[in-house]
Amino acid sequence: MRAAIFRNGDLVADTIPDPKPVDGQVLVKTLACGICGSDLHAFHHADKMMEVAKRSGSEFGMDTKRDIVFGHEFVGEIIEHGPNTQKTLKAGTRVCSVPITVTVAGEKARVHPVGYSNEMPGGFAEHMALSEMLLLEVPNGLATEQAALTEPMAVGWHAVEKARLTPEDIPVVIGCGPVGLAVIAGLKIKGVHPIIASDFSPARRALAEKMGADIVLDPAKSSPYKRWTDEATPEGFDPTSLMTILGMGPKMRPGVFFECVGVPGIIQQMLEGTPRGARIVVVGVCMEPDKFEPFFGINKEINMQFVLGYTPEEFALTLHHLAEGKIDGAPLVTGRVGVEGVKQAFKDLANPEIHAKILVEPWR
Amino acid sequence: MRAAIFRNGDLVADTIPDPKPVDGQVLVKTLACGICGSDLHAFHHADKMMEVAKRSGSEFGMDTKRDIVFGHEFVGEIIEHGPNTQKTLKAGTRVCSVPITVTVAGEKARVHPVGYSNEMPGGFAEHMALSEMLLLEVPNGLATEQAALTEPMAVGWHAVEKARLTPEDIPVVIGCGPVGLAVIAGLKIKGVHPIIASDFSPARRALAEKMGADIVLDPAKSSPYKRWTDEATPEGFDPTSLMTILGMGPKMRPGVFFECVGVPGIIQQMLEGTPRGARIVVVGVCMEPDKFEPFFGINKEINMQFVLGYTPEEFALTLHHLAEGKIDGAPLVTGRVGVEGVKQAFKDLANPEIHAKILVEPWR
Repeated sequence: MRAAIFRNGDLVADTIPDPKPVDGQVLVKTLACGICGSDLHAFHHADKMMEVAKRSGSEFGMDTKRDIVFGHEFVGEIIEHGPNTQKTLKAGTRVCSVPITVTVAGEKARVHPVGYSNEMPGGFAEHMALSEMLLLEVPNGLATEQAALTEPMAVGWHAVEKARLTPEDIPVVIGCGPVGLAVIAGLKIKGVHPIIASDFSPARRALAEKMGADIVLDPAKSSPYKRWTDEATPEGFDPTSLMTILGMGPKMRPGVFFECVGVPGIIQQMLEGTPRGARIVVVGVCMEPDKFEPFFGINKEINMQFVLGYTPEEFALTLHHLAEGKIDGAPLVTGRVGVEGVKQAFKDLANPEIHAKILVEPWR
Repeated sequence: MRAAIFRNGDLVADTIPDPKPVDGQVLVKTLACGICGSDLHAFHHADKMMEVAKRSGSEFGMDTKRDIVFGHEFVGEIIEHGPNTQKTLKAGTRVCSVPITVTVAGEKARVHPVGYSNEMPGGFAEHMALSEMLLLEVPNGLATEQAALTEPMAVGWHAVEKARLTPEDIPVVIGCGPVGLAVIAGLKIKGVHPIIASDFSPARRALAEKMGADIVLDPAKSSPYKRWTDEATPEGFDPTSLMTILGMGPKMRPGVFFECVGVPGIIQQMLEGTPRGARIVVVGVCMEPDKFEPFFGINKEINMQFVLGYTPEEFALTLHHLAEGKIDGAPLVTGRVGVEGVKQAFKDLANPEIHAKILVEPWR
């Protein structure tokens, strides 16, 4: 099959053997697979990424000296059922799945991350072997390109779930890349308003509005923290009045701040900008060492919730959100390429004015 | 009055004017006042402490070029009621209070931190001016030295409250200085077991046992994180079984890890040591810049709750916990000095084998 392969630190289009489904697996034809920021990071910093993943207790490990086919935001079509499968979903059914596949030997099971594995090629190839028990049927009427957004949108939904929002909260999204946009989509479904979103890029700000942000601003021109204060402060609030000091006056609405940038320095910046009692949800994936001043967290009694991924239930619910039109991901898809175009797409994604999500369609 | 004064970066015993109670204040005779780790920090790094407090949004500020009388863990006895007081508590009543005093001008109020203020001398002096409305009567039968522990014990209770513990949780206390010991006392009241506590000092480990820790260990010899794993793992648990991977097998008990050390590096150490899904409660007060790797938090979906201080309700409840014997703070008190002995006491507190809490008794 044709595949875009991470090989010797480069991305090359080449022909590799088809995966062979083992016990409990099915073979699918990849219909579409999004390129994720993590893929870009893996491309540029594969060894470092594996090193920090290993030190931080990840069970996943791939040998970056051997071929890897990236791609974990996929939709496929069942071609063939492997041994010991239930065959509940027939050949031709469109499916997606959390990007892991489980191989079983007796009582023991092994989990492989599809797209970050030397054994299990991801969605930047024509075919994938997936675990039948993890497959979800793509509902009729949901476009394949939208179904391909299930995985990145599930990341946002999970972050919003972990934030344990109440109707009183005012959410602020710092960074409107695909992660921030997915968080905005989740916040819109939760119905917590106003949703404040901040990004330096005009194109990203336009997408943030389309995904459901109520207030969108350019942090070069105005502070999202200041805007939160304006929105959160009740009329007649006076921080110096005795009633306020005794906790008996009107109260400010709580602030929940989503870190969706993922670069060193942003956490300290948020510790500096956020108000006393703020919750910070760290959704951006910073893989570099970072600096911060704990006293900012202490003095403000900040709660910082780091999040990653989603549960299988959240993933399934996100597919339904897309099918029901609660999320319209169409504006996010800014490009489509075949396996030959993957390398260029990785470069093109550096420009937020042009691209948000590029889908790989390996059958092209 | 006699006072131990922070003056020109030194601690000197000298005579200063008595405070004059203003509207709503009473004059009290200081009976006892504990020396806090924050006092030691203020003594050694006053300017830096004020700088970071200011940058992190604290409304408090003291001029370190002018005299300051430290001491915020106090018990006093009412001597005299100032103007516009209710006089509900009579002269001679023993009282404690959250270490702030509020001065009011019309509708506006100003909060002064007693013990970190140029205007309001703290408990290392013979007399203090306190807000009548914040006074709590020390219950009959509660020794003054125990009542003086209300403030540090309230810090531990607040941390435990902010941890939102469930009976399933297994708490681990890293560091058994006064802060860690207060957390252990709070955990004992909550009835969450086993309480695991860790400190390099044999004397501190002995105190941890007295305060209620079930398992006490020396981190130079065995890992508190490993011990948590041993306690949290149910019988027959197999991380590689399919049932476990599908989330349908027996589950590990959750871990709540209290950071009670407060030095740079400890947060990264805890991010490395704690398990997936851990909650870290940062009670130690690190005022230095620090380094960490966010990816450890991300990969494990850590929740980090920074805490500081307590609410007035928690403070009052802690006084009752002491009065009811739910906390026995007596073993913590390892020394008593007059104002002349404060400077030496600040030095002596550096040795955890000899000292935990030294009380200043300015009437000596």
